[in-house]
Amino acid sequence: MIQIDLNSDLGESYGAWKMGNDDQILSVVSSANIACGFHAGDPQNILKTLKQAAQRNVAVGAHVSYPDLVGFGRRNMDLSYDELFADVLYQISALQGLAQVAGTCVKYVKPHGALYNTIATDLEQAQAVIDAIQQYDANLVLVGLAGSPLIPFARKQGLAVVSEAFADRAYHNNGTLVSRRLDNAVIHDTGLIAQRVLDMVLKGGVESIEGEFTKIQADTICVHGDTMGAVQMAQEIRQTLLAQHIQIRNFVG
Amino acid sequence: MIQIDLNSDLGESYGAWKMGNDDQILSVVSSANIACGFHAGDPQNILKTLKQAAQRNVAVGAHVSYPDLVGFGRRNMDLSYDELFADVLYQISALQGLAQVAGTCVKYVKPHGALYNTIATDLEQAQAVIDAIQQYDANLVLVGLAGSPLIPFARKQGLAVVSEAFADRAYHNNGTLVSRRLDNAVIHDTGLIAQRVLDMVLKGGVESIEGEFTKIQADTICVHGDTMGAVQMAQEIRQTLLAQHIQIRNFVG
Amino acid sequence: MIQIDLNSDLGESYGAWKMGNDDQILSVVSSANIACGFHAGDPQNILKTLKQAAQRNVAVGAHVSYPDLVGFGRRNMDLSYDELFADVLYQISALQGLAQVAGTCVKYVKPHGALYNTIATDLEQAQAVIDAIQQYDANLVLVGLAGSPLIPFARKQGLAVVSEAFADRAYHNNGTLVSRRLDNAVIHDTGLIAQRVLDMVLKGGVESIEGEFTKIQADTICVHGDTMGAVQMAQEIRQTLLAQHIQIRNFVG
Amino acid sequence: MIQIDLNSDLGESYGAWKMGNDDQILSVVSSANIACGFHAGDPQNILKTLKQAAQRNVAVGAHVSYPDLVGFGRRNMDLSYDELFADVLYQISALQGLAQVAGTCVKYVKPHGALYNTIATDLEQAQAVIDAIQQYDANLVLVGLAGSPLIPFARKQGLAVVSEAFADRAYHNNGTLVSRRLDNAVIHDTGLIAQRVLDMVLKGGVESIEGEFTKIQADTICVHGDTMGAVQMAQEIRQTLLAQHIQIRNFVG
Repeated sequence: MIQIDLNSDLGESYGAWKMGNDDQILSVVSSANIACGFHAGDPQNILKTLKQAAQRNVAVGAHVSYPDLVGFGRRNMDLSYDELFADVLYQISALQGLAQVAGTCVKYVKPHGALYNTIATDLEQAQAVIDAIQQYDANLVLVGLAGSPLIPFARKQGLAVVSEAFADRAYHNNGTLVSRRLDNAVIHDTGLIAQRVLDMVLKGGVESIEGEFTKIQADTICVHGDTMGAVQMAQEIRQTLLAQHIQIRNFVG
Repeated sequence: MIQIDLNSDLGESYGAWKMGNDDQILSVVSSANIACGFHAGDPQNILKTLKQAAQRNVAVGAHVSYPDLVGFGRRNMDLSYDELFADVLYQISALQGLAQVAGTCVKYVKPHGALYNTIATDLEQAQAVIDAIQQYDANLVLVGLAGSPLIPFARKQGLAVVSEAFADRAYHNNGTLVSRRLDNAVIHDTGLIAQRVLDMVLKGGVESIEGEFTKIQADTICVHGDTMGAVQMAQEIRQTLLAQHIQIRNFVG
Repeated sequence: MIQIDLNSDLGESYGAWKMGNDDQILSVVSSANIACGFHAGDPQNILKTLKQAAQRNVAVGAHVSYPDLVGFGRRNMDLSYDELFADVLYQISALQGLAQVAGTCVKYVKPHGALYNTIATDLEQAQAVIDAIQQYDANLVLVGLAGSPLIPFARKQGLAVVSEAFADRAYHNNGTLVSRRLDNAVIHDTGLIAQRVLDMVLKGGVESIEGEFTKIQADTICVHGDTMGAVQMAQEIRQTLLAQHIQIRNFVG
Repeated sequence: MIQIDLNSDLGESYGAWKMGNDDQILSVVSSANIACGFHAGDPQNILKTLKQAAQRNVAVGAHVSYPDLVGFGRRNMDLSYDELFADVLYQISALQGLAQVAGTCVKYVKPHGALYNTIATDLEQAQAVIDAIQQYDANLVLVGLAGSPLIPFARKQGLAVVSEAFADRAYHNNGTLVSRRLDNAVIHDTGLIAQRVLDMVLKGGVESIEGEFTKIQADTICVHGDTMGAVQMAQEIRQTLLAQHIQIRNFVG
């Protein structure tokens, strides 16, 4: 049976500020990237989301970030190796303890925002993330940008790595994402998005913005839950996959 | 052989700000209360101190605090049960992951500053701390103020608890600490302090400020390392104990 | 012509987290209590709200708070006089500079959350707030809880003070608020709330929870804008007042 | 009479963490770059330093930074124009209010750390800083790196700009600083440093690391006060200048 993982960013409420529809998106995805307090999430809100994920049997990943709450981890920061290593380690550890009490455990690490984009190509920062993961728990899986230099780099060091594709993003012929600065970077048509997810799963790629079929390695596909519209789109992607008898389950199993 | 534990607060540097003489005080104490990032300590500095503690075989405890960096955790805060539970859990977890990579592990929890003083008598907040510890790891030991209501309260719930006394603080007849607002609350005479530590260990108490012998249960004695004078005093306490063939070792062993 | 001030808490978005409907509530109120960054509000979001307030000619006040972002300033903290004095001064100053660039200026100070409640009766903390205001700008007005000891205390020191009442809160016979821990502390019936606001303005009081008419000095009445329902309620209060030819304007004029 | 300005970074203590010898360095310099809370400095410590500066008649500048306390503002961050504009404005404003209560006022703005280095050449970020200064108070002076593109860029927009040189740093023939990554970037010989300061003031330049006389525009020279050795070096520089009848005074006068 063909299977695919759907992941989403969760646990991003902070104190009195609510973000996302964690409870609803947890009925759609098989993997929950949970904020660890550096770009979003306070211990109480994180714990609440972890308990919901545990109840629904959704796999939990540490959504580690640069320490930038006001910037939501979306701004590049040039941390030293030692800073980044310790920051990533601290976040995975904190989440793991909360997860354990919630009745689940951290299965993977997905860097967030600017850190995610940076380590896709900046292999110095990538090394700090890889080392933190491996020294903490060599069995953790790293989620990285499909087609990026990070994937083989981390794999060569013995880390299990899965490639992530984006349901609503346009790709170039060479498999890179179309920059968000361009108008057509993000796809809004729900039917088209669902079809592209199917193509990723069944054909191993999608039509690029230049009009050619382009291979995209998609071990996990990111969907959003920050608005009700996003939740509905995620639900439609899920239905489309299930209708094709594709199983939605975490890559770790 | 008679034995006693000496503990000190460590890992309190934050970013570019240095605090304490961690490396030197680690040659004196048998237990290191290590900041977890809420009142002091950033991941990089915490990890560095954990590695030093591991090298010297000093037992590591989580020095958990209210979330108040600018106030150094010294200001009372009325957190809800859920907030405090999750905050304590987050801190122990984060420290445990860093400790593991440093080659050691968290053996006990000592609340810091205002939290320490509050839960000595506020059993609602105490309950949140106790529950966080027990749900995370029921084998962890809680360090609390000797003679306080916290000690029997936590013990009754099955938590291992050790009583802490202060080498340089004056006590009342009833075993409570003389308030820091009073002039004679803190003792500065190094010889006298060392003698009082001996009395705590060998006689089970000290002379109170009212002039009578007062029982103080001292499973662990707190010494300071924030100034070079403090380090020297701690070294003198250590020498005095060793000269009496008293073993300095952690309560967990 | 009879007049009353309506105020609301604004500028409470923080980074990626949105809170409140600032633009809509600004068409209802005559005074905007704007967060200063300690419990909510980052510089960019604060500036945006200040510009909206300036455009609509709504008076701006500094909504100063304890430094507790994750707790949204709702948790009591025992700051020293010097800490609180400097924290309040810093916040008013920061807001004033942003206000000036936005084309307006800070006219009053309304402490937020736990600080608001604390200084209503804790005159030591109140003194720090009063001194910060007076040393910064003796013409600023302090907004305090109607009927509280703070009002005469601050007034005696030469500070202009206005008394605040709450549209949706129940009062006791003695003019104090019914505790939020009780079920009937908050009124939800929009028509009743609007009527009570009218009573406050026209009769100088409302019916207490014990069933008697109780005097409430209401120089300004707080309305909420955090949900769309709250905005509609605020709009209804406004319409009710205008229908009675009551002018809605800031107490400073 | 020839004159020069000496400036130093002050107000960098944070809560319980002490940094620098503000009181002593204030007897050496004519300009105090005071932290505004984003990389260092809490309101209480900032106010204390401002009062000391006011007493000694030392000119006060806003040492504005990226929002990065744990990184001490030393890490590059790619803030948007709107974020940086508002952050700089917030910091100047906060400092100005505190300065006013301390009996002084903000005369200039010197960006700190990574922001300082970035805007020396990144004119997009520079524009945000320039606009914030000009919209807040067009009379404020900007302190920038001598010889950098920032200087003419800001001046062309009507901002008063002064060029800063470093007493203890080596320069290349083209007037740029030798990178700190190279061994000989920092000069440690106190006598040599004092002589180079004299050369900057009297000859308008120093010998470059390549061995040639190189012009350096030095309107203000930065000295350090973070260690007692640094304070002594600063005092020696001051004595050397005074012995040559050079007046040490702020560029604003």
